[in-house]
Amino acid sequence: MSEKLDPVDLTARLIRCPSVTPAEGGAVVLLQETLEAAGFTCTRVDRNGTANLFARWGQKGANKSFGFNGHTDVVPPGDASEWRFDPFSATEAEGKLWGRGACDMKSGVAAFVAAAVDFVRETPPDGAVVLAITGDEEGDATDGTVALLDWMAEQGERMTHCLVGEPTCPTEMGEMIKNGRRGSMTARIEARGVQGHSAYPHRAKNPLPALVRLLDRLASHELDQGNSQFDPSTLALTTVDVGNPATNVIPASAKAVLNIRFNDIHSGASLTTWLEKEIARAREESGIDFSMTVKVSGESFVTQPGWFTDLVSDAVEKGCGRRPALSTTGGTSDARFIKDHCPVVEFGLVGQSMHQVDEHVETAHVRQLKDVYRHILDRYFDN
Amino acid sequence: MSEKLDPVDLTARLIRCPSVTPAEGGAVVLLQETLEAAGFTCTRVDRNGTANLFARWGQKGANKSFGFNGHTDVVPPGDASEWRFDPFSATEAEGKLWGRGACDMKSGVAAFVAAAVDFVRETPPDGAVVLAITGDEEGDATDGTVALLDWMAEQGERMTHCLVGEPTCPTEMGEMIKNGRRGSMTARIEARGVQGHSAYPHRAKNPLPALVRLLDRLASHELDQGNSQFDPSTLALTTVDVGNPATNVIPASAKAVLNIRFNDIHSGASLTTWLEKEIARAREESGIDFSMTVKVSGESFVTQPGWFTDLVSDAVEKGCGRRPALSTTGGTSDARFIKDHCPVVEFGLVGQSMHQVDEHVETAHVRQLKDVYRHILDRYFDN
Repeated sequence: MSEKLDPVDLTARLIRCPSVTPAEGGAVVLLQETLEAAGFTCTRVDRNGTANLFARWGQKGANKSFGFNGHTDVVPPGDASEWRFDPFSATEAEGKLWGRGACDMKSGVAAFVAAAVDFVRETPPDGAVVLAITGDEEGDATDGTVALLDWMAEQGERMTHCLVGEPTCPTEMGEMIKNGRRGSMTARIEARGVQGHSAYPHRAKNPLPALVRLLDRLASHELDQGNSQFDPSTLALTTVDVGNPATNVIPASAKAVLNIRFNDIHSGASLTTWLEKEIARAREESGIDFSMTVKVSGESFVTQPGWFTDLVSDAVEKGCGRRPALSTTGGTSDARFIKDHCPVVEFGLVGQSMHQVDEHVETAHVRQLKDVYRHILDRYFDN
Repeated sequence: MSEKLDPVDLTARLIRCPSVTPAEGGAVVLLQETLEAAGFTCTRVDRNGTANLFARWGQKGANKSFGFNGHTDVVPPGDASEWRFDPFSATEAEGKLWGRGACDMKSGVAAFVAAAVDFVRETPPDGAVVLAITGDEEGDATDGTVALLDWMAEQGERMTHCLVGEPTCPTEMGEMIKNGRRGSMTARIEARGVQGHSAYPHRAKNPLPALVRLLDRLASHELDQGNSQFDPSTLALTTVDVGNPATNVIPASAKAVLNIRFNDIHSGASLTTWLEKEIARAREESGIDFSMTVKVSGESFVTQPGWFTDLVSDAVEKGCGRRPALSTTGGTSDARFIKDHCPVVEFGLVGQSMHQVDEHVETAHVRQLKDVYRHILDRYFDN
């Protein structure tokens, strides 16, 4: 094994594994074979039917243990007949590789696997390189990175810094690193009154007027104006449902769901307290019975700009010819779990076609990405 | 045919006809036989599968043509096993007659048929007695009384005054006459924005905040304070629906339905104009696209208190020992169609068990009701 590992070829082989969450599809097995052949110690850390792979080159618990994190599972392709090429064929055309997962994120995984394999063979470091690869990022994410981190804690396995290989660039390769993420939480609110006839509203207690007033207050409230690291927090009403087909009936109950993306001015707990206060006010004003369940899927976090973000930025500039911006925009990622383990940043491809029909990646970008990851490893262990 | 017609027996025979809307069930045929035997000229005025019966004793177009209106169709019984007695058995027990339609309103029809038959036999009037009996009151009411009135206009048939025999008494026999009804209209509002990801609300246009604000304004607006004849108008939000199961997706559209019960301070047209103005304001404030469809199922009307309401009130007092109140409360009835033809009031039984399991009527009340209707006829043609 002296030839360099081609990340485009590895991406194509991964795409041909139909690993729609939670299926393994052969992707984890392929990576395990590749990494074991390069001297990595591999452990399958499966949980509840999700395949996860932990791979380490070097000593367990080394003071320099650089980690990469990514996932091999993909979202469903939808109607395959709408695709130009079969979504699991990994067809190369027009300088691009086409298929489900081409962008999100089999190419990212292939790039860091290829970079790591070349790195440990060509310049064996004084430390460890850790790859934490999961099969449950597109699902509810409870049996993927979380399972790996739980297992690592039990085993004394370590990452001293970690890079997540998700797509991070809005339109141009190299333009953005994510050094943090907003938190995300979902609140489900139910208002309960008393059913009745529309002609006799005084005999009923309609939950809808109180609910729409509450929702108007919540949706029009300015949570904050953002800060130097974060955009303003946002609240989105995602659904309101009653399901009453009868125009002469006042409904007994009504439900609403809202999703908040919040920066570090708030926390899941502080926002829950705010929602509870607004609900108490609505209850008092209307006499309508309200209940709420809240699920915080991730708190906000930020990896403060410093030598680690500089190191990654330098590597991106070297690989892509462009100095990336630091950003905390966008949705959540598995970095929300890793930040409790070690400093983490994210850098990867242009994400425009992710989750779409005709998902694709520029093959040149995949090779650039491998170069960036290699530069990161070179610099990290040169320190 | 010298014996008086027993309205309780006729009600029982009608209940045994399973005339769930739009089925005729034998009810109209039974009435036609009964009325033809008593010298009434009967015409079936069926439309779109609904059986309607027009019956007249006396000269067509007479200057005194007193009309009764009622329906033989009934709402479904639901699960018959939940009833004490089979809903179509017309069992008599505990001084009551039990079955679907016992209260709404086979008893009312039986009472005016029995009163009319006795009246024309015992004291043949100088004028006409008209019975307009329909089979589509519990449905969407388009092929029942409306069909009869259309046909009557074509044929030159006439009612100079009309009494609708629907249940009108809240708890005690004889306590209430309806001399008008509020109008009813339903508005369906749809708000359309642009779908997007909850993490990127600035790239989407969420229709929900604009919709809940609009609905809050509409629901909290005081339409009026009522007047001497009418309660205040009411607006009920009956449903809001989006049907978006994904908490990370901002929906493209949202729908709401509201029902307004309005007095004579408003009209369907004036309320539509008000709704359109509020929607235009919401559109302007939010940039969200709104659309609305309105259905006015009936305008408000009132039969002014005067000699006709006095005549009916006197008859009720004579028959029931109680002076009835005049009221315009409650839902709509077929009187909303008849008021364009001639002055109309409504008087009938206690409505408490209508549309319920174990629907029943006090047999004594049915006989009282026949007496009241007979007093009305005696007084009307004595004038």
